[in-house]
Amino acid sequence: MWPYITPGIADDLFERLPGIPMTQREIRLLILSHLRLTPTSVLWDVGAGTGTIPVEVGLICPQGKILAIERDEEVVGLIRRNCDRFGVKNVQIIEGSAPECLGEIKSVPDRVCIEGGRSVKAILQAVWQYLQPNGRVVTTAASLETLYQISESFSSLQVRNIEVVQASVNRLQKRGNSQVLVGCDPVFVMSGEKMDD
Amino acid sequence: MWPYITPGIADDLFERLPGIPMTQREIRLLILSHLRLTPTSVLWDVGAGTGTIPVEVGLICPQGKILAIERDEEVVGLIRRNCDRFGVKNVQIIEGSAPECLGEIKSVPDRVCIEGGRSVKAILQAVWQYLQPNGRVVTTAASLETLYQISESFSSLQVRNIEVVQASVNRLQKRGNSQVLVGCDPVFVMSGEKMDD
Amino acid sequence: MWPYITPGIADDLFERLPGIPMTQREIRLLILSHLRLTPTSVLWDVGAGTGTIPVEVGLICPQGKILAIERDEEVVGLIRRNCDRFGVKNVQIIEGSAPECLGEIKSVPDRVCIEGGRSVKAILQAVWQYLQPNGRVVTTAASLETLYQISESFSSLQVRNIEVVQASVNRLQKRGNSQVLVGCDPVFVMSGEKMDD
Amino acid sequence: MWPYITPGIADDLFERLPGIPMTQREIRLLILSHLRLTPTSVLWDVGAGTGTIPVEVGLICPQGKILAIERDEEVVGLIRRNCDRFGVKNVQIIEGSAPECLGEIKSVPDRVCIEGGRSVKAILQAVWQYLQPNGRVVTTAASLETLYQISESFSSLQVRNIEVVQASVNRLQKRGNSQVLVGCDPVFVMSGEKMDD
Repeated sequence: MWPYITPGIADDLFERLPGIPMTQREIRLLILSHLRLTPTSVLWDVGAGTGTIPVEVGLICPQGKILAIERDEEVVGLIRRNCDRFGVKNVQIIEGSAPECLGEIKSVPDRVCIEGGRSVKAILQAVWQYLQPNGRVVTTAASLETLYQISESFSSLQVRNIEVVQASVNRLQKRGNSQVLVGCDPVFVMSGEKMDD
Repeated sequence: MWPYITPGIADDLFERLPGIPMTQREIRLLILSHLRLTPTSVLWDVGAGTGTIPVEVGLICPQGKILAIERDEEVVGLIRRNCDRFGVKNVQIIEGSAPECLGEIKSVPDRVCIEGGRSVKAILQAVWQYLQPNGRVVTTAASLETLYQISESFSSLQVRNIEVVQASVNRLQKRGNSQVLVGCDPVFVMSGEKMDD
Repeated sequence: MWPYITPGIADDLFERLPGIPMTQREIRLLILSHLRLTPTSVLWDVGAGTGTIPVEVGLICPQGKILAIERDEEVVGLIRRNCDRFGVKNVQIIEGSAPECLGEIKSVPDRVCIEGGRSVKAILQAVWQYLQPNGRVVTTAASLETLYQISESFSSLQVRNIEVVQASVNRLQKRGNSQVLVGCDPVFVMSGEKMDD
Repeated sequence: MWPYITPGIADDLFERLPGIPMTQREIRLLILSHLRLTPTSVLWDVGAGTGTIPVEVGLICPQGKILAIERDEEVVGLIRRNCDRFGVKNVQIIEGSAPECLGEIKSVPDRVCIEGGRSVKAILQAVWQYLQPNGRVVTTAASLETLYQISESFSSLQVRNIEVVQASVNRLQKRGNSQVLVGCDPVFVMSGEKMDD
């Protein structure tokens, strides 16, 4: 399905379910870049949605380990099918609600990606205890409320080397007979590191 | 309906028809600014669509004259109803297809706005003959093809003081329970002047 | 200098001082639109900087009254010279530091624009007491901190009909021999109304 | 220097020379994604500038081969030093002016990246003869002229599966005491494939 070693799988190659959010290719590229993966990274992906991040990380990082946390049973199936579709074998899906279910996960993460979830604040707080020293956390925000909550959490958790990027990408798309520039919803990608104690 | 002297009427105050394009408020602000209207401007608005530009110009410029050119009979009715809704009296609607119908218009323009139309090139070419010296033309482009055509036309017509601006505006909008930033399709606004011979 | 009745004065027509911020044309258009001025509006402009908003409002609103609040003596002179340059007579400049100096202003505002200032929160809080019922406040934010503070203030002051827009405008500019698209720094424009008690 | 397996090296890790353009991280991510590299890709990078693309591809693609074409002797040295800095060994720098020098290159490319050069049209035309069937070409455009030229060339060369994306990224950056959103210049990334004959 994706014989390339560079990330950025075309959006329409993923199976989708109506109402389930999918992280667009251009935002995925930013998330992956902010994750700064190593060959043996252990990634927790909270609120994995369509599963695009687990699939991309699985392909880039065949010796790594991805734990996708997702509360919705139907969405769990979707993530699994998308992993199968791309031949990704190192994704383990945890059906559960974050932050409650996080304590049960055996593998300690050095990378955390928070794509969704009821309360970003509570998830960040919980995740931070498990994240290894020098580990990295990457979050996305589409709303100002989420942006504020992440900012506050980053500050109170003393996240260091914080980077904030807002991407708005225009794509040339067919509309009727002509190709028009179509704007994508702008997303904030925020990342940082845990201090080495 | 709009007791204010500043432009930028809220989009949802206009009557709309499905499939008929409407120039969004933020793009309208740019168009109006690039038009640089005077109190007695005569504006040709080609491809007037929902009629937002005629309405805004009618309100700002009560002593001016707006000629809205629109080929679709149903859309002509829409423009008329939107003018009535805002109490705008100085808009004359010409039902016809540009550039063919332009020769029949009695009032010579010092301002031209091209919001749509089959062939921007042919319209620009034709309009240029009628535009008064020191007159201004403002066009919008959502596709790269239109962008190219306007560029080429501006160059061959020796349009001077060309300005090109591409606006992409994100609006905070309700989506479910949260307020997310929603991107609008980016539009190029291109304008210039006719040399004084 | 500006014989037009539409706002959007070209940036380079203003006198500037090094280090003094100037609100760019495209952002100015948004601010003016969010202000929704009436012919007799009384506007407080806090942190007026180069004076572009006082000048534009002075031209659009010759029967209105603009009170430009600015603490820096040198900048006060700049605002005055820019008003003179455009023949604007209805701008009164108050040299003072907001919010402390606000109590001395005789004219009660129905429109407030906050372009700058040490503490947006304190200024919003103070300004709100003077703002007339149904009056409007418009603020800009270039940093996330300011964005948060305005959001919180709007919420605690129960500002209604809140609108948030983030504009990022690309301009075609000469660079060497070619015309490249140059991005402007994105600014959030946030506005709302005071409830009629 | 960069122990990670994901692309997106921080801009300030590269050595720079004044006046020599550098492809920013976020644009680099898009270029790399559009290249769709395979483990053994042979990449021609025309107008390599600071050498960020050769470095990133060298790291992702250790079994691949990168040929960086650059006419300026000083810039050739810069690319070499940046490759050394990141321990990249599979970049060969060709000091020469494209398209003239292309005929001397021994390795036939399956990927071409055009980051700069006097005439994009002539370079695209020449490069196309060498590009292997099913090979991919990726170009960037900062000016409308370049955009037009690439569009025309893509059309006349019958490039297939064309994708056009315009990225404008805002970064949170320190300015004085506060963190403001700073816009990057928007760049068009255009890519496509050569038909399999």
